[in-house]
Amino acid sequence: MSERLIYLPLGGAGEIGMNCYVYGYGPQGKERYILVDLGVTFPDMDGSPGVDLIFADIEWIAERADRLDAIFITHAHEDHIGAVGHLWPRLKAPIYARSFTAHLARLKFEERGHDELAIKTANKFPEMVTAGPFKVGFMPISHSIPESSALVIDTPAGRIVHTGDFKVDTQPGVGEPFDHEAFSELGRSGVKALVCDSTNVFSPKPGRSEAEIIDNITALVADAPKLIAATTFASNIARVKTLAEAGSKAGRSVVLLGRAMRRMVTAGIETGILTDFPKVVSPEDAGSIPRENLMLLTTGSQGERRAATAALSRGKYLGFQLQEGDTFLFSSKTIPGNEMSVARILNNFSEMGVDVINDSDLYHVSGHANAPDLSQMHELVQPQFLIPMHGEHRHLRAHAKLGGKNGIKSVIAPNGTMVELQGNEPKITEFVETGRTYLDGRVQIGAMDGIVRDRIRMALNGHVVCTLIIDENDEPLGEAWCELSGLAEVGASRAPLIDVLEEDVNQFLMRAGAKTLRNDDRLEEEIRKIIRKSADSEIGKKPETTVIVSRLG
Amino acid sequence: MSERLIYLPLGGAGEIGMNCYVYGYGPQGKERYILVDLGVTFPDMDGSPGVDLIFADIEWIAERADRLDAIFITHAHEDHIGAVGHLWPRLKAPIYARSFTAHLARLKFEERGHDELAIKTANKFPEMVTAGPFKVGFMPISHSIPESSALVIDTPAGRIVHTGDFKVDTQPGVGEPFDHEAFSELGRSGVKALVCDSTNVFSPKPGRSEAEIIDNITALVADAPKLIAATTFASNIARVKTLAEAGSKAGRSVVLLGRAMRRMVTAGIETGILTDFPKVVSPEDAGSIPRENLMLLTTGSQGERRAATAALSRGKYLGFQLQEGDTFLFSSKTIPGNEMSVARILNNFSEMGVDVINDSDLYHVSGHANAPDLSQMHELVQPQFLIPMHGEHRHLRAHAKLGGKNGIKSVIAPNGTMVELQGNEPKITEFVETGRTYLDGRVQIGAMDGIVRDRIRMALNGHVVCTLIIDENDEPLGEAWCELSGLAEVGASRAPLIDVLEEDVNQFLMRAGAKTLRNDDRLEEEIRKIIRKSADSEIGKKPETTVIVSRLG
Repeated sequence: MSERLIYLPLGGAGEIGMNCYVYGYGPQGKERYILVDLGVTFPDMDGSPGVDLIFADIEWIAERADRLDAIFITHAHEDHIGAVGHLWPRLKAPIYARSFTAHLARLKFEERGHDELAIKTANKFPEMVTAGPFKVGFMPISHSIPESSALVIDTPAGRIVHTGDFKVDTQPGVGEPFDHEAFSELGRSGVKALVCDSTNVFSPKPGRSEAEIIDNITALVADAPKLIAATTFASNIARVKTLAEAGSKAGRSVVLLGRAMRRMVTAGIETGILTDFPKVVSPEDAGSIPRENLMLLTTGSQGERRAATAALSRGKYLGFQLQEGDTFLFSSKTIPGNEMSVARILNNFSEMGVDVINDSDLYHVSGHANAPDLSQMHELVQPQFLIPMHGEHRHLRAHAKLGGKNGIKSVIAPNGTMVELQGNEPKITEFVETGRTYLDGRVQIGAMDGIVRDRIRMALNGHVVCTLIIDENDEPLGEAWCELSGLAEVGASRAPLIDVLEEDVNQFLMRAGAKTLRNDDRLEEEIRKIIRKSADSEIGKKPETTVIVSRLG
Repeated sequence: MSERLIYLPLGGAGEIGMNCYVYGYGPQGKERYILVDLGVTFPDMDGSPGVDLIFADIEWIAERADRLDAIFITHAHEDHIGAVGHLWPRLKAPIYARSFTAHLARLKFEERGHDELAIKTANKFPEMVTAGPFKVGFMPISHSIPESSALVIDTPAGRIVHTGDFKVDTQPGVGEPFDHEAFSELGRSGVKALVCDSTNVFSPKPGRSEAEIIDNITALVADAPKLIAATTFASNIARVKTLAEAGSKAGRSVVLLGRAMRRMVTAGIETGILTDFPKVVSPEDAGSIPRENLMLLTTGSQGERRAATAALSRGKYLGFQLQEGDTFLFSSKTIPGNEMSVARILNNFSEMGVDVINDSDLYHVSGHANAPDLSQMHELVQPQFLIPMHGEHRHLRAHAKLGGKNGIKSVIAPNGTMVELQGNEPKITEFVETGRTYLDGRVQIGAMDGIVRDRIRMALNGHVVCTLIIDENDEPLGEAWCELSGLAEVGASRAPLIDVLEEDVNQFLMRAGAKTLRNDDRLEEEIRKIIRKSADSEIGKKPETTVIVSRLG
């Protein structure tokens, strides 16, 4: 049987988040595998209320874990690394990452009691990690977190360049600048497939450098009349440093608020990536400093309810309270879906009289390559074909079109699409069942298990529980009674809804024949129907209904 | 007692939506009132799952309905007119509106069986409606729906100009152009207070005219290779007409899809506002027309799940199915909060191979005045003071700052803030309790009643119902049993969660003393604690818990 080279996204191709890509090489059914990234995506009230985190469903590769040689993590953003602690026990392969990323992966392993020896620190390309038939190199690439890497994946069937997340930034502040020459050299070496970030394909202008906003931030902080606070992603260490330096230059003491902010700065310092970070003072020590000499750096730029920014917007937090005339800078852009949470914070600050600066053109740059930058990558790497990844379907499709304009053949492969790469044409050979796994409390459940669906239904429709007791003679013992949750108390008839429902159920029970009363399923079904119909006519809603039949017999 | 003139927003000042403003004049406690607008806002899964519509809590004015002389509706957008059918029975005052708006208000009254005679068609300013001590004129103003009006409110204490929603558009397509001279004349007549739309205060450039996008739309439709569909707000009749004319010019037959689309076009034609609308064909008749000669105009530009756009994105709808190479135009901008719903549609279309055009600069203009337009309004009307309305707190605050730059004193008055206007300075005199009323199914409930809170809690935490029977001797009859909704089936111990919970409750019951078993409240409280603790240690969640104690005694 001939050998084949496959690409199979389990997450990240069809959404922005939850990255998880399989590469395989070998005879069909006996391929050896590597996995690139193990990320999370975040739940929302619309589709996943009460859920804590969302992972790709890794069942396919977990079933083949004996043939999985290694896991590679491109960088330490949660949508690439967030699931390592949760999913590794089902995979058990060694994890390779560069120093900063590996440091953060180890913290995750520590939290969950896994063996940290499974996490190996890799050096950068041209050094390669051998994993079965693959050789994988970590090629430095600029992004909004240090030590991001494109992966150079060498296989007997040719070389793949998997960009991970990236932008083209020759002055990223912290971390390695984008190296055109190095990518051009890759191109000259011959690349079979470019598997490429698609996030910003709809942005038509060339991307801007992290360096371009330093002056704006510095001037803003220098001019702030009273206390200034600023938020950004804590993992954007270059930005955190720019903000802190702006504070320091303006003679302000810098305070880090929020666990992620302290954790990331510490990780940066411990791994040697972050040098010359301005001295920070603790929230306690800040109490003795005049507030106009303070600069707070806070977590929660996306409006996260429990983060420092939201806490400050609700009032006092660790002794700090924003006031009339203070300044709050969002050095960030709101990710789609978070608009309402961020707006809530903006309005809270407005009520306090805080001046919010929220101009993402002046005080923020994206971490992803815009359309012209993607074209630049296409030209540098000159791949035989392009596989757009890290995007919703519309991003993948637009990126494939852009590739077409640049003379490169593309294949659109959403999650679960297995593509064979060994020939001259990429070939879609199989559709693998994929999906999402929810971390719900401390338990992993399938997105399609119906558990969260039931919660959504209760949220939309309310919940009625009806209990009745059937005695030894299959006769109702007393009357049935109902408990209502999340339903209006009074409806059309002006009588309490609970009374109406109980009356209707008990009327039915009086009429019900022995055959019905002996049959739990039928009894439950009939009572459920009565309750839903009765509630609908009273209040215009059909509640979720649980019927509990208790038999003394 | 001296007479006073008051302004009291019950909705719309602190949010964009749910407009409802009270004006009063007379001796304190004996003022006569008018109400401006009775709008709705829309629920979301985050804060109001299962709710159908949201109204301002009108309790304050409903308690004083005997002194309410009239209700004025500025225009027919749902956030200004949407609650008339639902709330009018508590107010019973005559409703005044211009022809098109009154037409739509009557449809709402018809649906709910109210007396349509309560709705009076008003002519435009300088004609005035007398309502108690007020005289109110409907001054035509441009907006994204026909016959929008600013209200000229004359009182013994001076003239108020209440802009309603507006933009400065001298070529609005359908409806009256903005009349600088008319507003300037108002200014010369002496205006005490300008109560002014704040929606677009953060947009720094002058607003664009509806006329500016006609050529873009016409060219796009002419160039579409296959079927083209377009969506916009149905109430934006000028836009609907532009789209239909572009279709007609390109030799396409126009099909209206969605109830609101047909209803608005019909209302426009019946009230004489819309003339020369291209001939439309029914979905049935369209079947015999080649699809490349069709143009569909669809409802649901904001991603509404049940509207025509979403339906088309899911597959076949009324015989139409979009295909590879078709074009779909969003002649709209996504309102914050609707991003995810719209994105879902974009991705569905992407999977079908439909080319989506979604550039709100080229194919859409806003219906609201941008900052320079607001300044223009300030200058034309020259009010003694400015009251920003129709905005979140941050919009009101920014608008007040803009007024300050233009030399006008402002007062920021969020919902519930009563402002006295009779003197030379506006004076905040009282804070009235305000809030939101939910239409939940067919019942109106208070947002703070706890009903929706309970639903949210079930959605986040799941629901356990525990039932036990206590016999005549205050002893448990058999064992307690649980029903679980929305919870993982198995947790840490690998035993079914339901078994663990029942075991823990039954262990407790065996140990429980007679005193506990006789006391329902105590029993319920203890069992609730046990279930929450036990579930937390099993699955890491504390479910909502209902305990049902049934006594045979």
